[in-house]
Amino acid sequence: MLSEKQRQKDREKFLTTRRQFLKLGTAMGGAAGLFALMNKKHTAEAVTSKALGSRVRQLGYEEGWLGTSRIVGPIQRTSEADHGFYLAARGFFGEDAKTQVTRFIPKHPLGGAISSMRTFIATEAAVTGNPAQRKLSIPDPKRMTEHIKKTAKFLKADEVGVGILPSYALYTHRAPPLPKVLYEGSASLEDLTPVVNNHPYVICILVDQNLETMLGSTGYDGISGSQSMMSYLTSGLIACTLAAYIRNLGYSARAHHCANYELALPPALISAGLGEMSRTGESVLHPRLGFRHKAAAVTTDLPLEPDGPIDFGLREFCAKCRKCAEHCPSGAISFEEEQTVYKGYMKWVNSIEKCTQFRVGNRDGSSCGRCMKVCPWNNKEDSWFHSAGAYLASTRSGLAATLLKEIDDMFGYGTEVVEQYRWWLEWPELY
Amino acid sequence: MLSEKQRQKDREKFLTTRRQFLKLGTAMGGAAGLFALMNKKHTAEAVTSKALGSRVRQLGYEEGWLGTSRIVGPIQRTSEADHGFYLAARGFFGEDAKTQVTRFIPKHPLGGAISSMRTFIATEAAVTGNPAQRKLSIPDPKRMTEHIKKTAKFLKADEVGVGILPSYALYTHRAPPLPKVLYEGSASLEDLTPVVNNHPYVICILVDQNLETMLGSTGYDGISGSQSMMSYLTSGLIACTLAAYIRNLGYSARAHHCANYELALPPALISAGLGEMSRTGESVLHPRLGFRHKAAAVTTDLPLEPDGPIDFGLREFCAKCRKCAEHCPSGAISFEEEQTVYKGYMKWVNSIEKCTQFRVGNRDGSSCGRCMKVCPWNNKEDSWFHSAGAYLASTRSGLAATLLKEIDDMFGYGTEVVEQYRWWLEWPELY
Repeated sequence: MLSEKQRQKDREKFLTTRRQFLKLGTAMGGAAGLFALMNKKHTAEAVTSKALGSRVRQLGYEEGWLGTSRIVGPIQRTSEADHGFYLAARGFFGEDAKTQVTRFIPKHPLGGAISSMRTFIATEAAVTGNPAQRKLSIPDPKRMTEHIKKTAKFLKADEVGVGILPSYALYTHRAPPLPKVLYEGSASLEDLTPVVNNHPYVICILVDQNLETMLGSTGYDGISGSQSMMSYLTSGLIACTLAAYIRNLGYSARAHHCANYELALPPALISAGLGEMSRTGESVLHPRLGFRHKAAAVTTDLPLEPDGPIDFGLREFCAKCRKCAEHCPSGAISFEEEQTVYKGYMKWVNSIEKCTQFRVGNRDGSSCGRCMKVCPWNNKEDSWFHSAGAYLASTRSGLAATLLKEIDDMFGYGTEVVEQYRWWLEWPELY
Repeated sequence: MLSEKQRQKDREKFLTTRRQFLKLGTAMGGAAGLFALMNKKHTAEAVTSKALGSRVRQLGYEEGWLGTSRIVGPIQRTSEADHGFYLAARGFFGEDAKTQVTRFIPKHPLGGAISSMRTFIATEAAVTGNPAQRKLSIPDPKRMTEHIKKTAKFLKADEVGVGILPSYALYTHRAPPLPKVLYEGSASLEDLTPVVNNHPYVICILVDQNLETMLGSTGYDGISGSQSMMSYLTSGLIACTLAAYIRNLGYSARAHHCANYELALPPALISAGLGEMSRTGESVLHPRLGFRHKAAAVTTDLPLEPDGPIDFGLREFCAKCRKCAEHCPSGAISFEEEQTVYKGYMKWVNSIEKCTQFRVGNRDGSSCGRCMKVCPWNNKEDSWFHSAGAYLASTRSGLAATLLKEIDDMFGYGTEVVEQYRWWLEWPELY
C-alpha cells in the first residue's frame, strides 16, 4: 500500500482542469499542424481514421511468434486458480488483498450492481449447449466470417476479430467461482475442473469502457470497477448470444466471459488481430481503443477465416514510451527497454502481486484503471495522436516514439481530468 | 393471411435499389434547400440536430391529458393475459396464430438465440430485490435525475426519460410466461397474479433497433424478430442493472422488461417524455428514433424530477400522413383522420388481431416491422426530413404534414431497400 504522502504526490499529477485542457488542445492542434508539415506527403492520408487501418500490418501465423510476441519455448498453460484475483483470494498476496478481493468492486454501488448482473449469464446453460441437429452448409468461410462480425456489431460489439485458437490460451483447469473459493479459505486442487476444448477458432469481442468516463477519472475514484464490469457484462452477453446463434446454425460454440472462462484472453485477442501485447505485460492494446476495453470470446468449430495477428508498431513504441510504468500507482509495470523470457515467451514482465494488491486494496477508489487512462493510445479515433502516431509508430522508429511521448507529456495529455465527465457518485467512506 | 398475389403486390412497393436511392438523395437535398429558402429565418436553427430539441415542447401533467393523448374517462387497466401475443396463445386469433406464436421469433436462428438470452434476466431475482439498508440522502432530485440518466447512458441506453408512473399503466394482473400458457392450452384466471406496485416514478430506457438493418429490411425477411429481441434484451439488461443500482442506493426499484413486466409501456413512455402516441395506436414514436426502438423501464421511489410528456406535433402529423396504414401488410392500422374513444382515452384504434395474426403467421419472414420502416420518422438524426419536419411539424399545420409526406413518398423514402445493409442470413424454408 502507498503511504498517504505518496498518494498525495501521485494525485498531483492529475491537476489539469477542463479550461487548461482546452487551452492545451489548441497548442496540441498546433503540434498536429507541425506534424502535418513535417510529413506533408503522408499526412493527408494519416489524418483520417481510415489511415489507421492502412498502417496496421496483417502478420499471419508464423512459427515462433504470436503476432509481435516472440515464443522461445513451449508456452506453459496456466490454471485459472493461478490468476491474480484467485491468488489474492487464496492468500498469496497477504491478508488485506484476501479480505478485499470480493468487495473491491461491490463496495461502489454501481460497480456492485453491474457485477451482480454477471451472475445471470455465468451458468453453463448461458455459455454452452448442444448444436442444432440441422447443420448449415458453409461453402465460403470468408463470407461466414464477415457475417459473424456483422452479427457481433449488430449485437453492439465495438470491435470483433477472428483467430485460430492458440492451444496455450486454454487454462489447464477451471477454478470454482471466486466467492466460493474465498468462503472455503483456499482453492483446493479437488475443486478444479480440467479444461477440454477442441474448438479450432476463437471469435473475440471488445466493448469500449467509455472514453468520457475515462477522461474524468484518475484511478483514485469509484468508477474504474464500474467501467470494467459494464464492458465485461456487455461483451459477455454478446458472446453468449453469438455462441447460441452459432449453435442454432448447427455448430459447436462456447462463450467465455469474465464470469465463466475456459481460457486466458490475451493470446486469443492477439490471434484474432485485436491488438499487440503491451508494456503492461498483461493487457492487449487495440490500435483504436488502447486499453479502454474489456473482452469476451466464443470458441467454435464453425468454419471461419481467421484475421490473424496484427502489427501497428506497438512493441517499438512501448519500448520507448514507459508512460504506464511512470504513472502506475503500484509500481507493477516494468521500466526495462528489453523484454525478458516468461513461461516460454518474451514480454515485459509485470508484478501481478503489486497490481492486484493495489487494485483490490485501493482505499481511494474501486479498482484502478490508471494504465488505461495515461496510455497515449486511450484516445479518440480521430485525435491528432492517433493520426500522427499511427503513421510514425508504423515507421518502427524509437526516435518517433520518444518524440510523440514527450509531446504527449508536455501537454498533460492522458493525465487531464475533465470535470464535466465526472458524472458518477463518489462514496469515499465505503472505500 | 394475405394471398400470394397480395403479397407480391405489397413487395413491389420495395423496389428502390441503392443506386436509385442515392440519386433520389440528391434530389431530396434540393428539396431540403427549397425548404431552407422558404423558411430562411428558422432554417439555420432547424438544420442542426440540436434544433430538434428546441422544437419539442415540454407539456407537464394536465388533468384530462397524458401528453397529447386526450383522456375522456377513467382508463381501464388491462391484464397482461389480454395482450396480443397472449390472446393469440389463448386461441382468440385462430389456430394458425395459436400454433405460430411461440415459434415466430425462434424460427430464425438469430432471433431465437437472442430471445433465449432473455430468459436469464426474466427471474424475480434479476428484476427486483431488497433495497440496501443504508439510504443515500437526496437533497436535490433534479441532480439525481441527471445522474440516473447519465448512468443509463453509460450502461448503453440510447434514450432515457423520467416520468410520474401513471397508475393505469400498471397491469391489473400478470400472466404466466407465454410458453407455459401455450402448453396449458389457455391461461386460466387462477394463474394470474395481481399487480401491486406503489412506486411514484418510472424511468424509461430506449434502445435503437439499428438504422442500417432497418434500411435493408422490408418485413418480408428474417430480421425483424432479431431487431426486436436485440433491443428488448439490451434495454432489459440495462433496466435490471439500473434497478439493482437504485436498490444499492437504499431505494425500492423494480425493472420491467419484455420477459417480466408489471406494466404496459406506452403510457410510461409518454409520461417520461420519450414520444407521443402515433397512428399505429400501439407504439410511442420518439422524435429522433421514430418507432425504431424497444423499451424497458424501472419503477422506483427514488426521489426524481420527472421530465413529463412532450409535444413535437406528431398528432397533427399522423392525422395527415397515414403512410404506416398504407403500407401495413395486415391492414391493422386505421385510416381515419379523427381519433376515437378507446378504454377511456382517445386514439387511432388499430386491430390487434390483424397485427398479431400477420406477425406471428408471417410465412415470408420472422415478425414484421413494416410500420417502423416506412414511418418518415425512422431516420437519421441529422437528415433533412428531421430538420425540416421538426420545424414544420411543430407548426401543427396539416398542410405542412401533407406536403412533407408527399415529398417523402415521391422519392421512395422509407420504402427503399439498401442492399448493402442486408447482412443477415435468410432462411425462408423455416418461415
